[in-house]
Amino acid sequence: MIVGIDIGGTSTKLGVVQGDRVVARARITTARGGTPVAFADALAAAVRDLAGDVRGIGIGAPNGNQLTGVIERAPNLPWPGDFPLAAMLSDRLDVPCTLGNDANAAALGEWRYGAGRGLTDLMVVTLGTGLGSGIIVDGRLLLGPFGNAGELGHMTLVMDGRPCTCGRKGCLEAYVSIRGMRRTYSELLSNNGEEPLEDRDGVLPIAAAAMNGQASAVQTFMHTARWLGVGLANAVAVTAPQKVILFGGIARNGDLLMEPLQEWFQRSLLNIYRDRVRLGTSELPEDDAGILGAAALGTVP
Amino acid sequence: MIVGIDIGGTSTKLGVVQGDRVVARARITTARGGTPVAFADALAAAVRDLAGDVRGIGIGAPNGNQLTGVIERAPNLPWPGDFPLAAMLSDRLDVPCTLGNDANAAALGEWRYGAGRGLTDLMVVTLGTGLGSGIIVDGRLLLGPFGNAGELGHMTLVMDGRPCTCGRKGCLEAYVSIRGMRRTYSELLSNNGEEPLEDRDGVLPIAAAAMNGQASAVQTFMHTARWLGVGLANAVAVTAPQKVILFGGIARNGDLLMEPLQEWFQRSLLNIYRDRVRLGTSELPEDDAGILGAAALGTVP
Repeated sequence: MIVGIDIGGTSTKLGVVQGDRVVARARITTARGGTPVAFADALAAAVRDLAGDVRGIGIGAPNGNQLTGVIERAPNLPWPGDFPLAAMLSDRLDVPCTLGNDANAAALGEWRYGAGRGLTDLMVVTLGTGLGSGIIVDGRLLLGPFGNAGELGHMTLVMDGRPCTCGRKGCLEAYVSIRGMRRTYSELLSNNGEEPLEDRDGVLPIAAAAMNGQASAVQTFMHTARWLGVGLANAVAVTAPQKVILFGGIARNGDLLMEPLQEWFQRSLLNIYRDRVRLGTSELPEDDAGILGAAALGTVP
Repeated sequence: MIVGIDIGGTSTKLGVVQGDRVVARARITTARGGTPVAFADALAAAVRDLAGDVRGIGIGAPNGNQLTGVIERAPNLPWPGDFPLAAMLSDRLDVPCTLGNDANAAALGEWRYGAGRGLTDLMVVTLGTGLGSGIIVDGRLLLGPFGNAGELGHMTLVMDGRPCTCGRKGCLEAYVSIRGMRRTYSELLSNNGEEPLEDRDGVLPIAAAAMNGQASAVQTFMHTARWLGVGLANAVAVTAPQKVILFGGIARNGDLLMEPLQEWFQRSLLNIYRDRVRLGTSELPEDDAGILGAAALGTVP
């Protein structure tokens, strides 16, 4: 039995994985106890409650470094510094524990259980508040010598473009992410003299407005598809994977994004990659995707 | 004894490599005989003349596919179609023969004999008529599942930018290459109302004019440095190498390019790579670089 732990900004999900299915689940508050030590205690207790004979634990976390097992200054977690959660948990439970970043967990999850089964070269792109990525090269997760390879969200798409949270300008993530799409929508509303149809956060209100035919919302998806198509084609020109897989909420908005994206992606590819490199979406069950990815981290050596 | 063969558009260089040095050299005309069969015959004869007991042969060629040993429709070679030169040569000489593309040969050459010795993760960028690249990931040459990974020259730098020879627009190569620099220079001359100081091909006249302080020439190097800095930083965000090495004539123009490039490269890197990923130039002797790279192809399994 492998336990997968998916650490998010507010809640942390745990699951027991047998074969390719999650057979038991639990959830704790990420801020539990207020300190990394208290969080590790709570996590160890939750694992004990959930499963008896655990062979391995995989943890997917924002800014998780797989080479060191350390969560490094993750801006979306309640603790500002670095802490070695892999060692803290394996000390408490006496079980081998592998920690990695959430995008790498997603890549391993798709590779082992989802849309990347049987392939040797994959690129998984997570679309959420930001844009993350995990890359499999020749049957191995690409970590890089510093443990931080695969930051496609911070490839420059537009020189002197939009400011990015990283401090630079024009990053792919500043255009293609929940934050980026909301900015695009807001710019287009203002250009087009339109008002938002709904006053909610996230991308769903834009999708709803696009379904209603609102020009700014429709254009937001068209621009986003083009930007992402070019950005993905740029990354393909480096590792030439067999498949690029989109993971996360935005990609689940169905044809609104995916239909124009398929077109822009193929059109943006260099001819030697065109019609060879496929683009698809996650095939993991939405609620268990994070747990399965984390579990894959715990099983792949 | 390993023989390295460096196939260029007009002439093909052969060399015998012992240790890390080229101890004997020869050269034949690439168009020799007019057909691939005649070329293979001439090449085999030249290898026999040059060396006695050959253990392996490496061939670096434009559009060489290492997975198949085939030169595939290379636009700069005299033969339009595909031909399996690796098999043709090893049949004639009864020696194992590895063929790869010239940029991958350059990468292996730097890794084994040059500026990449002792590293596990490298990116070698060849600057010439076009912009090629060879990438080492975790101690292995990155070929990709189709044998065609690493086409950094065809990452889009500017959406809707300059037309590229590949048929798309805005590729890095359309800006950073001999052809790209000449176009930049010519646009700047026209903007600035200046005339070229010398009427010669290539990049040397631009370098000479820059040394003379001509604004258009100086600006050409500044723009090129910025574009290349951004392009390299984008590729670094995928594989996160320890070092990026520039190879080829343009990179040998000394500080004119390299000084502003070092600055733009570091400034364009995401903070987690900044001051960790180094940028340098080839450390192979200029005349033997192609032969050493090809020989490295012949020795690395």
